[in-house]
Amino acid sequence: MTIWYGGDYNPEQWPTNIWDEDVRLMNRAGVSLATVGVFSWARLEPRPGKYDFAWLDGVLDLLHAHGVRVDLATATASPPPWLALRHPETLPVTEEGVRMSVGSRQQYCPSSPVYRERARELVRRLVERYADHPALELWHVNNEYGCHISHCYCDVSAAAFRDWLRAKYGRIEELNRVWGTAFWSQRYDSFDEVSPPRAAPTFRNPTQLLDYDRFSNDELLACYRSEVAIIRARSTVPVTTNFMGFFKAVDYWAWAREVDIVSDDTYPDPADPDSPAYAAMVRDLMRSLGDGAPWLLMEQAPGAVNWRRRNAAKSPGQMRAWSFQCVARGADGILFFQWRQSAVGSEKFHSGLVPHGGTDTRVWREVEQLGRELAELSGRTGDAAIVGTRVPSSVAIALDWDSWWAIEQPASPTEVSYVRTLFAWHSALTSLGLTVDFVRADADLSGYRLVVVPAHFTATDSQVRNLAAVAETGTLVVGFGTAITDENLHVRLGGYLGEPLRRALGVWIEEFAPPASPDLSNLGAGAPPELVLDGEVFGGPATGRVWAEYVRVEDAETVATFAEGALSGWPAVTRRGTGAGAGWYVATLPDPGALRRLAERIVRDAGLDLPAPAARGDRVETVRRGGYVFVINHGAHEAEVLLDGTDALTGAPALGLKLAPQGVAVIGVE
Amino acid sequence: MTIWYGGDYNPEQWPTNIWDEDVRLMNRAGVSLATVGVFSWARLEPRPGKYDFAWLDGVLDLLHAHGVRVDLATATASPPPWLALRHPETLPVTEEGVRMSVGSRQQYCPSSPVYRERARELVRRLVERYADHPALELWHVNNEYGCHISHCYCDVSAAAFRDWLRAKYGRIEELNRVWGTAFWSQRYDSFDEVSPPRAAPTFRNPTQLLDYDRFSNDELLACYRSEVAIIRARSTVPVTTNFMGFFKAVDYWAWAREVDIVSDDTYPDPADPDSPAYAAMVRDLMRSLGDGAPWLLMEQAPGAVNWRRRNAAKSPGQMRAWSFQCVARGADGILFFQWRQSAVGSEKFHSGLVPHGGTDTRVWREVEQLGRELAELSGRTGDAAIVGTRVPSSVAIALDWDSWWAIEQPASPTEVSYVRTLFAWHSALTSLGLTVDFVRADADLSGYRLVVVPAHFTATDSQVRNLAAVAETGTLVVGFGTAITDENLHVRLGGYLGEPLRRALGVWIEEFAPPASPDLSNLGAGAPPELVLDGEVFGGPATGRVWAEYVRVEDAETVATFAEGALSGWPAVTRRGTGAGAGWYVATLPDPGALRRLAERIVRDAGLDLPAPAARGDRVETVRRGGYVFVINHGAHEAEVLLDGTDALTGAPALGLKLAPQGVAVIGVE
Amino acid sequence: MTIWYGGDYNPEQWPTNIWDEDVRLMNRAGVSLATVGVFSWARLEPRPGKYDFAWLDGVLDLLHAHGVRVDLATATASPPPWLALRHPETLPVTEEGVRMSVGSRQQYCPSSPVYRERARELVRRLVERYADHPALELWHVNNEYGCHISHCYCDVSAAAFRDWLRAKYGRIEELNRVWGTAFWSQRYDSFDEVSPPRAAPTFRNPTQLLDYDRFSNDELLACYRSEVAIIRARSTVPVTTNFMGFFKAVDYWAWAREVDIVSDDTYPDPADPDSPAYAAMVRDLMRSLGDGAPWLLMEQAPGAVNWRRRNAAKSPGQMRAWSFQCVARGADGILFFQWRQSAVGSEKFHSGLVPHGGTDTRVWREVEQLGRELAELSGRTGDAAIVGTRVPSSVAIALDWDSWWAIEQPASPTEVSYVRTLFAWHSALTSLGLTVDFVRADADLSGYRLVVVPAHFTATDSQVRNLAAVAETGTLVVGFGTAITDENLHVRLGGYLGEPLRRALGVWIEEFAPPASPDLSNLGAGAPPELVLDGEVFGGPATGRVWAEYVRVEDAETVATFAEGALSGWPAVTRRGTGAGAGWYVATLPDPGALRRLAERIVRDAGLDLPAPAARGDRVETVRRGGYVFVINHGAHEAEVLLDGTDALTGAPALGLKLAPQGVAVIGVE
Repeated sequence: MTIWYGGDYNPEQWPTNIWDEDVRLMNRAGVSLATVGVFSWARLEPRPGKYDFAWLDGVLDLLHAHGVRVDLATATASPPPWLALRHPETLPVTEEGVRMSVGSRQQYCPSSPVYRERARELVRRLVERYADHPALELWHVNNEYGCHISHCYCDVSAAAFRDWLRAKYGRIEELNRVWGTAFWSQRYDSFDEVSPPRAAPTFRNPTQLLDYDRFSNDELLACYRSEVAIIRARSTVPVTTNFMGFFKAVDYWAWAREVDIVSDDTYPDPADPDSPAYAAMVRDLMRSLGDGAPWLLMEQAPGAVNWRRRNAAKSPGQMRAWSFQCVARGADGILFFQWRQSAVGSEKFHSGLVPHGGTDTRVWREVEQLGRELAELSGRTGDAAIVGTRVPSSVAIALDWDSWWAIEQPASPTEVSYVRTLFAWHSALTSLGLTVDFVRADADLSGYRLVVVPAHFTATDSQVRNLAAVAETGTLVVGFGTAITDENLHVRLGGYLGEPLRRALGVWIEEFAPPASPDLSNLGAGAPPELVLDGEVFGGPATGRVWAEYVRVEDAETVATFAEGALSGWPAVTRRGTGAGAGWYVATLPDPGALRRLAERIVRDAGLDLPAPAARGDRVETVRRGGYVFVINHGAHEAEVLLDGTDALTGAPALGLKLAPQGVAVIGVE
Repeated sequence: MTIWYGGDYNPEQWPTNIWDEDVRLMNRAGVSLATVGVFSWARLEPRPGKYDFAWLDGVLDLLHAHGVRVDLATATASPPPWLALRHPETLPVTEEGVRMSVGSRQQYCPSSPVYRERARELVRRLVERYADHPALELWHVNNEYGCHISHCYCDVSAAAFRDWLRAKYGRIEELNRVWGTAFWSQRYDSFDEVSPPRAAPTFRNPTQLLDYDRFSNDELLACYRSEVAIIRARSTVPVTTNFMGFFKAVDYWAWAREVDIVSDDTYPDPADPDSPAYAAMVRDLMRSLGDGAPWLLMEQAPGAVNWRRRNAAKSPGQMRAWSFQCVARGADGILFFQWRQSAVGSEKFHSGLVPHGGTDTRVWREVEQLGRELAELSGRTGDAAIVGTRVPSSVAIALDWDSWWAIEQPASPTEVSYVRTLFAWHSALTSLGLTVDFVRADADLSGYRLVVVPAHFTATDSQVRNLAAVAETGTLVVGFGTAITDENLHVRLGGYLGEPLRRALGVWIEEFAPPASPDLSNLGAGAPPELVLDGEVFGGPATGRVWAEYVRVEDAETVATFAEGALSGWPAVTRRGTGAGAGWYVATLPDPGALRRLAERIVRDAGLDLPAPAARGDRVETVRRGGYVFVINHGAHEAEVLLDGTDALTGAPALGLKLAPQGVAVIGVE
Repeated sequence: MTIWYGGDYNPEQWPTNIWDEDVRLMNRAGVSLATVGVFSWARLEPRPGKYDFAWLDGVLDLLHAHGVRVDLATATASPPPWLALRHPETLPVTEEGVRMSVGSRQQYCPSSPVYRERARELVRRLVERYADHPALELWHVNNEYGCHISHCYCDVSAAAFRDWLRAKYGRIEELNRVWGTAFWSQRYDSFDEVSPPRAAPTFRNPTQLLDYDRFSNDELLACYRSEVAIIRARSTVPVTTNFMGFFKAVDYWAWAREVDIVSDDTYPDPADPDSPAYAAMVRDLMRSLGDGAPWLLMEQAPGAVNWRRRNAAKSPGQMRAWSFQCVARGADGILFFQWRQSAVGSEKFHSGLVPHGGTDTRVWREVEQLGRELAELSGRTGDAAIVGTRVPSSVAIALDWDSWWAIEQPASPTEVSYVRTLFAWHSALTSLGLTVDFVRADADLSGYRLVVVPAHFTATDSQVRNLAAVAETGTLVVGFGTAITDENLHVRLGGYLGEPLRRALGVWIEEFAPPASPDLSNLGAGAPPELVLDGEVFGGPATGRVWAEYVRVEDAETVATFAEGALSGWPAVTRRGTGAGAGWYVATLPDPGALRRLAERIVRDAGLDLPAPAARGDRVETVRRGGYVFVINHGAHEAEVLLDGTDALTGAPALGLKLAPQGVAVIGVE
């Protein structure tokens, strides 16, 4: 088995004489999989009910003739302009009532029955025509669900939302209870009075907002399901839709159950030195969404993107290094957006495998090299030695979309970035050489020795019980902002955390006291002050950010404290030993160095072995997959490999190997 | 007489079994007054014309049975969702035409006849039912008029505005003259052509904007009056509505005449070290609005609020210190929002007297302590020794909503914060131990020895005469930006200031020259440079901010000058002695230290005695009320009392008393 | 011949008794030309079809009687409110669908047939009445076309845009090809499906955006033409409309062909030390637009403006210095906005020739002085020695509105300010004492020895050929971002620059690599890092900004390189000698000092003589017009003239003359 290699292929942008060069170059680069048709609805159905598949027949036949497999898109992500002209109510509307126009992409209301029916009809015809095509390897449903438009506020959506609420709550009084409409005179007398959370004089009802997040996710998922049902009725080829890493609007836990293989689009900023660590977290999420199964990197850029204000180019070797990161963390395919860089349109400055400058270019040479190396890797390591294997982990971080939606709402104790909080913990653990899974709070956690639960704001009773149980036999680490509310955003009263986390950790929270800077204007406040922390566990000076609070210790050891101000002497970190396990509580976000040292202490306390360093150097990433250790040098200086074994990329002995910046070694260790 | 203690009580958020605990805890905390029903319209009238008062009967009876008096709200601030469904035209509209939705609060157009009639009908029924209830102490009309929505731009408002203009101007030609429509081709041929100042290509007519500010204030006041008329026709219980400190949209001078007692909601940021000084200014305003009569602190937070980006908790003792500040500055009641912290909804993270964590909490212990101390204070000081007394002052600052609205308009000489300008003067004077009143420019000012007039941009002829007359027998201090225009925003020609201030001060202004930084983009310019000032009166290095100008001296002494640039050597501060009085002019905003020293010079020059320092320490506030001096330590270090007398809070001798941070002493000095 | 002097005169704002003082003061100040009626539509036609010209008769007769010539406006820039009431569809609409309201100015949709017909009817009557008035010197059509509202997105505009597209493309398939609608499923099946680029989910089609910029410019120009046609049918008096310097929305190359004399409004920020250099560039543009013919400064402010957040006053002498800058750079008239400072309305704090404070003011004294000096200058220098003369130049910078619109689009490689890029080159060349023209890329460039082409992003094939030809006999300097696309925004493939620039310069561009800072949020990224450059040509340390890229050298000398990071060692500046000429390429924007030294090297290499310094001092501007060298001291310190000759302003010998800050000398050198 080999690692898939290729990318989005949009030949409809080019005259057909280019197509022949395309397949010739694909073969040269080792391309094995091409995603076709993502944005071709208007080409496939140029006017209502008039279909034109001849060109697509040609594309698939051509690819097949050259041995390139096809990931065939359903093309439903961007309706043609004729739909908007004939059915303007299919265009999405913002909170302020602005109806979006045609001329960009993905301009549809997910709840629109007209859009859905036209999409289904297109899918029916595509499936009918291509289900048995010999080039077909994968179905690619729609594209990046929720991108740009995840929530629509139009009247069609409003009606759908009311139906959703009726189904969920049954009686309006139940909605009133759950939403807490007794306050602010929000009581609804019937479902007809309820709206989407449109622009309003001030803070909108938090549970309404959360329900609208859920509803919006459900509506997108219903779109996906309606297409998949048509495919599966006729085809056994696997189905995917491309995810977008940590994408707030879409709850990928729910979606991952419905794809045959997880696939992901990610575009970390090459100018950001944190990007490799952040990307590592994204890869771990993709692996975790599929419950450890291999996944596909569906899209990345070979060079620069074009949608930031300023778009850094990838430096030489960076594309290769980041690609091997994906393989190390469970990917079985490395695909790109897009094959040939567009000459016109909104993405013409988004890099492509075939750049504007042609093949006498750095980018193309790196494309050829990577294709060759990926193909050779399977050969060198043996069949299924890497491809298809799982990446084991005994450490997990809990991830929850409800909590993400809830903790970032306005009218909360303070401004928290949920993903940055996860990232802080993931980075700290990863920098110790550990591989980390993401898990649902209600999953079976018995396989993990250490579970970290940061800012898990909103939790059901059963989630709380499931998390608390970790401390009985393993190590549970709970971060601030956890289990503050139930799934309805009702605060757990009687001391934050609530039973049974209070018992598991031996603490409860009396009051929040987040760091804040003066904010007379309620606008544009500067960064909040840092909090000085005190504790031997930090191994040196330490500061806290984002959050602080009054922690009441009932049955735990205070491991570190706040050191200044009103909180001086109050616990910042506590630990409760349970014999077989332990429960830690962390009431702030320590600075990266302090958090790394705290994490190391927790890991050792949990009895986990830390792997020996695989290399000497700064910003070197180490991951084990199958019998191989991937060593990737993201730093600015040369690194030196410290492992015995053989580099599967070169066949050279690993020990003492020097890795230049962006250098990679894949070391067989078994 | 005792000081009222209590807060907003919203039992409709809770099951009735909690109500019994509520009244038990109220008694424990010394709660004497509860505000009921503020946001209960949708509960009282769950559908059009169907009323349900039974639960409110129960609340009032229960409170009465436990000796808690009731401040009963008219509940009209937030119409129920059914009103919006049936009458969408009652929903307010922004300048850009966005119609607000239900789901937050206070979503009504103040000019809506439908809203007003539904509100009146509710008030009729409430008054009918509860006018004679034995618990009733106060009527609480609506809530925080103008909060979130002070100006509505809908078509209903447009029609009302045209009526308002017809009544004001009679003939369209008079409107054209006053608005100066001869310029920019704005001439109206009939009132039908006039709109609210909706979104427009560029700067809108300034007098139109000012009239719309006045109209909007009048419309809100009409709403208030329409409710009060119903109450007074049936009840002799006093009436209030809660103000919001320095709130730009509502001219509290006009409103204060129509309430039986002034009441205020204030939420200074605990993270801001300027908050105590700013809050002192707010308290002085409330006392001044009632012409010196005692007022109620209707709402404050026991701990954190939840509507800033980051919400600092009050530090231990801060709630108590700020409460005594109110009493010192004329409050006869200390109330809070809200009694029991909500478990759900938009304000669940706004602190309450009964916190989420219950009664084993710092906040609850401070609530009990403050209730006890307030109750004991009356006993210790004797009946009416503090409660009901007035706070004397011989120093005043002129405050004017028209000027506020006008000077902060776009297309002005420079960006000025009216309130920050007032605050600079108030702080300087207060830091000298003086108590300061706010006054209208057309009030009888003969009782004041010193009147400061900062940035009084817009003034009628009679106001200007009234202010100028101060200099004849007392000391008049005029700040930059004063009397630039008349009440129609017509510039006073022939040299800024205009007669007779020019005569009173001996100067006129030739040209404005505010400090500015480069602004090629007209967006996001940085802070303007500081201006170096020169003058012995500042007692050291001094800088100016915000404003500068060319001052022409006719009959005055130049006390300080600008020291750099084109203005170098031009007057920054002048003084004209008049024998019995003096007129000072200050052409910039000196930095806080320089302004304090300048203020001290002016005060001494005015023959005012500065009180001896009541305490040694940083950020110690001193205010005298009745026979007592309140000493409050807002600083970070211990302070020492320097007064003879007895601390009424403890019975201890005052002299040498050490006050910890947030510490308070109430020292009998007669 | 004398230099025109005067300004906008709006007597309709004032009672008629002021008018007599106006003309008396005009005579005192030497006013020779007054612009009348710019914003008087509502006064001239107070209701539909009812005209009132009597007052305007009076104004023109009065001016004529006092020897003041008239620039008569067509008054069509601001329709009266009655038009909006009767035809709300004439009001412009934003991208988000917000319809603008009356109450400010210029509230019309340029495509509105109703607006156009009402405007034409007004012009017909004005022309009929005043074509033969003896005071008439100039027709002033509309005002500042495009100011505030340059693009309208209403349905009327949408229909006009579709007509424009039909005329341009003929068949919808041609539009699809040019816009590249094959991507993102944007294919249009008929013109009826096309919209203006209204608010959309994400980036809108770039060619659609560019076409909308062109369409919007064309619509404004059609408005202008429709008025001019009426004028020219009846009158031989010359026609102008006032430009606004570098104004993005309006392509002045197209407009300049249609005016009889170019006129300009400019308001540089007095607080910005770069303003004199920036203003010099604007003056050079105005001269270039008229192909070297004299132009009019139609509007400047005698002191402060009022539309910035903070409005600096002009310092003493600054108005005079900037006025002489205009004369030096080709202006034959110095006019102001406005004659008498308004007492009311949105511009009352915009300075006027007659200030609020009257004539005992600095501003008025400077107005009188400047009027006297301008009148005397012609006398001293002799008839036509300055007035009417052209300012010669052998150096040009290419300027192109298509490129401006295109390079500042979103979804580009990086954020570039087109005008700041031009400004960098203009400043560098001007600081060497050179006078610089702006030219079109398709103009006859044979008269120039040096042509600089910065960021000329979008270029037709013939433009590219024309530019490339410069290098054959002269010196061509091409900056980054040039010729990346053709006029349809199709990338020139096969290496950026494309043939024939690639041949002329001996280089091509492989890949862009602009400096970028981390931008995880895609919002509010900080400034990008600077790039270290290495090259003797910079004469010292040098840094680059904005842009960087991989330059491939085929037939050129690498003059300077990037010195750090992935680009280290790659060319930053190259030169290809062609025998008679040379072609330079500059792949970044060097810092101002480095660019100046590079420019000097290029100029010397081109065989151009640099003029001997006319003065010793910092920020001294030197320009030659006719037989006179204008020396203007914009610096903060005294400067000393180094030229022989006589100062025409004073008759004094020039050599050794000391110029105070803002000082001016006009030195006869022939």
